[in-house]
Amino acid sequence: MESTDVRVRLDFGYDGTDFSGWAVQPRLRTVQGVMEEGFSRIVRGPGPGLTVAGRTDAGVHARGQVAHVDLPVRVWSALPGRSSRTPGEALVDKLAGILSDDILVRRAIQAPEGFDARFSAVERRYSYRVSDRVETRDPLTRRSVLWAKRPLDLGLLAEASSTLTGLRDFAAFCRSREGATTIRTLVEFSWRREDDGPDVGLVVATVRADAFCHSMVRSLVGAVLAVGEGRRDLDWLEGVAASPTRTSRIAVAPPYGLTLEEVAYPEDAELATRAEATRARRFLD
Amino acid sequence: MESTDVRVRLDFGYDGTDFSGWAVQPRLRTVQGVMEEGFSRIVRGPGPGLTVAGRTDAGVHARGQVAHVDLPVRVWSALPGRSSRTPGEALVDKLAGILSDDILVRRAIQAPEGFDARFSAVERRYSYRVSDRVETRDPLTRRSVLWAKRPLDLGLLAEASSTLTGLRDFAAFCRSREGATTIRTLVEFSWRREDDGPDVGLVVATVRADAFCHSMVRSLVGAVLAVGEGRRDLDWLEGVAASPTRTSRIAVAPPYGLTLEEVAYPEDAELATRAEATRARRFLD
Repeated sequence: MESTDVRVRLDFGYDGTDFSGWAVQPRLRTVQGVMEEGFSRIVRGPGPGLTVAGRTDAGVHARGQVAHVDLPVRVWSALPGRSSRTPGEALVDKLAGILSDDILVRRAIQAPEGFDARFSAVERRYSYRVSDRVETRDPLTRRSVLWAKRPLDLGLLAEASSTLTGLRDFAAFCRSREGATTIRTLVEFSWRREDDGPDVGLVVATVRADAFCHSMVRSLVGAVLAVGEGRRDLDWLEGVAASPTRTSRIAVAPPYGLTLEEVAYPEDAELATRAEATRARRFLD
Repeated sequence: MESTDVRVRLDFGYDGTDFSGWAVQPRLRTVQGVMEEGFSRIVRGPGPGLTVAGRTDAGVHARGQVAHVDLPVRVWSALPGRSSRTPGEALVDKLAGILSDDILVRRAIQAPEGFDARFSAVERRYSYRVSDRVETRDPLTRRSVLWAKRPLDLGLLAEASSTLTGLRDFAAFCRSREGATTIRTLVEFSWRREDDGPDVGLVVATVRADAFCHSMVRSLVGAVLAVGEGRRDLDWLEGVAASPTRTSRIAVAPPYGLTLEEVAYPEDAELATRAEATRARRFLD
């Protein structure tokens, strides 16, 4: 970040169906690729890089995704043109005009001092939606709901999930990455059957952690669904969860049921400290 | 209906995005066309005709649609094959295997005596979803939510809608059809801003009537949205509503915000009487 740059916080969502995930990949349509191309049109030059809070896999959706991008002050200040909008409002409008309709930036603001979309975050919250009865299936939401073949036992789902929460090594659920820890704090892993609203009858998991390693949410959901469907028992879950490396015994849940709902940040004064602490912990232990 | 036929009630939903509405049309993909083709595969012959409760326009969705179809007894009885399922359960499974994933039959049962999906119905309930602020827009629901350009005034929406309810001639809101009355009872036309759940922040209209004539719901919503956005006032609405024929002064709301949510039927003993009364009233006065 140059001293003549403005760090911009972006709050956005996307329908992950037609994206090959977040991260730029050659010849594939990715959320990062599409957004950085949009920004290159706005800055009229090579696109500035985006840093995201949750690097979602292919097919995974986001409602409360957060990223930051550093824009030259002259670009930021010129965004409103002759209008009375703020630069952030003007940026939201410009992006709405540039991006396809499966991605939407809802808010753009100058980020507070020390903000880093990835490393300042203290918590990510995901939801996973399942229809386990034909009566609850809705073609309108088929792109974000898993249509499971067997009925789910909510009691078993709760019992299984509760054995996995807390501070622990999630190596069994993570694709390994050189030098990166797989220790995380799983703050919440709960299930409920919606009794109202558009999701009525659906079984929805809420998964909250300080951070997730690659494929962790879908592996957690896949393992617990096996118990909730009665295909596996709690002893099996205890066994696979204790595996020191990722295990093929867990069927990873399909991506399209998963949505990144929210990313939480500390008070502004804590942003820089939090980012430093996260960097140190994630890579050095 | 032959005496050797079983009348089957179908409860189903569809994502209307890729359908040219309900009714069969040459060379176009319609819900009726796709379903009747599915039934022709099941009966292994020319497809039996479907009668539907709500003939939706191109792009309009349905969650609680109802239709009936008359199947030969031998076909109905043979549906379970060697399984222990009921014929209705077997039919639901077969249709799930045949139909594309933007249409789903949730339930199939032998209809009670006197049942007619169209003429026995006593009420249809539609919803219309609007996002009037960029913060409430969700790419995941973009196919069933209107993204309005201006903020909506809930008080004005309520006031405008309340002037249109009750038993009256809706000629101003209906495409005319020779010999058909445009008198209907609009039981409910209300608006709320969702404060919870997946639709949080959206403005949702509920529209209930004994029946709707062609384009009526979208015309009603379009007229009231003009008031709620502050583009028109209540005097204007009173003027257009009094028009003796359909008026081009009303901008019909786009189809994709509209969803048929529910069709209500009377007690079984009333089904035949209700159907006769509806037929008489709809075509003879």
